[in-house]
Amino acid sequence: MSIVVVGSVALDSVETPFGRVDRALGGAATYFSTAASLYTQVQMVGVIGDDFPQTHVDFLQTRGVDIRGLQRKAGQTFHWAGRYDYDNLNNAQTLDTQLGLFASFDPRLPDEYRAADCVFLANIDPVLQLKVLEQVRQPKLKVLDSMNFWIESNKAKLTEVISKVDVVLMNEGEALQYGETFSLITAARKILGLGPKVLLAKKGEYGAALFADKTYFFAPAYPLEVVKDPTGAGDTFAGGFLGYLASAGDYSLAAMKRAVLHGSAMASFTIEDYSIDRLRTLTLADIEQRVQQFAHFTNPEGNLPFEGLVLARELTTDD
Amino acid sequence: MSIVVVGSVALDSVETPFGRVDRALGGAATYFSTAASLYTQVQMVGVIGDDFPQTHVDFLQTRGVDIRGLQRKAGQTFHWAGRYDYDNLNNAQTLDTQLGLFASFDPRLPDEYRAADCVFLANIDPVLQLKVLEQVRQPKLKVLDSMNFWIESNKAKLTEVISKVDVVLMNEGEALQYGETFSLITAARKILGLGPKVLLAKKGEYGAALFADKTYFFAPAYPLEVVKDPTGAGDTFAGGFLGYLASAGDYSLAAMKRAVLHGSAMASFTIEDYSIDRLRTLTLADIEQRVQQFAHFTNPEGNLPFEGLVLARELTTDD
Repeated sequence: MSIVVVGSVALDSVETPFGRVDRALGGAATYFSTAASLYTQVQMVGVIGDDFPQTHVDFLQTRGVDIRGLQRKAGQTFHWAGRYDYDNLNNAQTLDTQLGLFASFDPRLPDEYRAADCVFLANIDPVLQLKVLEQVRQPKLKVLDSMNFWIESNKAKLTEVISKVDVVLMNEGEALQYGETFSLITAARKILGLGPKVLLAKKGEYGAALFADKTYFFAPAYPLEVVKDPTGAGDTFAGGFLGYLASAGDYSLAAMKRAVLHGSAMASFTIEDYSIDRLRTLTLADIEQRVQQFAHFTNPEGNLPFEGLVLARELTTDD
Repeated sequence: MSIVVVGSVALDSVETPFGRVDRALGGAATYFSTAASLYTQVQMVGVIGDDFPQTHVDFLQTRGVDIRGLQRKAGQTFHWAGRYDYDNLNNAQTLDTQLGLFASFDPRLPDEYRAADCVFLANIDPVLQLKVLEQVRQPKLKVLDSMNFWIESNKAKLTEVISKVDVVLMNEGEALQYGETFSLITAARKILGLGPKVLLAKKGEYGAALFADKTYFFAPAYPLEVVKDPTGAGDTFAGGFLGYLASAGDYSLAAMKRAVLHGSAMASFTIEDYSIDRLRTLTLADIEQRVQQFAHFTNPEGNLPFEGLVLARELTTDD
């Protein structure tokens, strides 16, 4: 089963209390593809400049990512610089944004992409998200992410895209902002009322909630002792979620709940290191282990030894 | 099985986006006793002034609360005034605090209280908490709550009390502050290193995490569409938690996990109305229903219909 992802491919400069990286591999489509490619075939649509290191392209290819839709042009790759403070690891402070070629990004799907089973519309202009939907044939699952910028600047167009997708993935705060409410349940009602089957509200270090007509499901985040860099956690979550679903070929609500645990487990690894570095060596067995732990630590009859969490710490501080 | 609770009994004036109440029944010991008395015998220690309405005392007695340790003196009852804003229902803004008789509170346990099975030291001066521990014989479970004020003003004494109790109950932010860390796992290590078997970290609308030497357990908060007044949620949580344990006579880690769900369910009712009003008519069957729902909405194999949550909304908007 294949997934088309359309979104940013970037070079990120990130400062955290634990260190910094300059012009490291980043972008929503990158995190998503790196995560989802552990499960299934990913077809990427994006744009990069002549400043984008070939090693990053090579890396994506070693993951089996189809990059025929990754346009390389003369000019600058999208560059984002941000900082996380100790008391606010959930929210980055943006220091600089240089859109470069991303400002004129025109997503075009190669013919081979049009029959994809799933589409992930990462956080880009809803006008472009609509253009992508016009280019795919009959995907089994269409998933959208967005952000406050589009809610504020083009809510009408965003609403149009929302009405055409199956799953809306947003940060909790963005879902509330979109719903013009302080209750996530009210926001869920409004968003589901527009057509989507599912709202997946991401709560950062507090987990994720799934709302559907007949279902409420909540998954806490995996507890970590050390968080090195939260960048890309949401897109990694999406990659684990959609990668699991596409590989299973099962888009039922029951499968989506299991997929949320895969997304949460995958995201917990991403934030243990900068950029997509932790994902480079990650295996499906590593993810499965944390997914199993989720079943224990939310179940009063289960038993997750505290020692199980030490493992996570040691993974992060040793490398 | 009986529980001794020592803490504030207050008259609270609270403003929320949904309305306000003036000099309503409040205080940590009040919320705790009202909640725990649904499960078991509660023995209360506190102080009230001659301005404290007798109807409140009568109410506690109708719940079977033993008030022989509730001192009534000439003077003012502890009065707290606070406000919650739309964007911060987790944290009250204190408008006014008048300690009144609480400033010279000297907790004395009637002889009949000394053989209690459990002790709940609500958030008071750690010097007084120690005095209480000296007056009980051999309780099976000692639980402590505290707050930033004592961490900042008398950490040495607070540490001494922590080393003498079985369960430490703190807000997440307070546990981090106490542990001088930004990782709750690190904070848990430090606190458990002092002697307690369990750290229960309350995360407000995001739930509660239980840390023990061999166990990590997480319970999300019950999702509510309308929150009227978050005051007392933490003490109600403690009342449900300890009430369940004492009534079961089981203080194992397995029982504590189930008790966390009872505490969370109980707290979800408290915040649906002002003061302890929602608890007045609450039954154990109501709580059991939400506890059962918890098992569904964190289990990918479970199924909690979205409609189940509508019930919560209707309870809050109709009364």
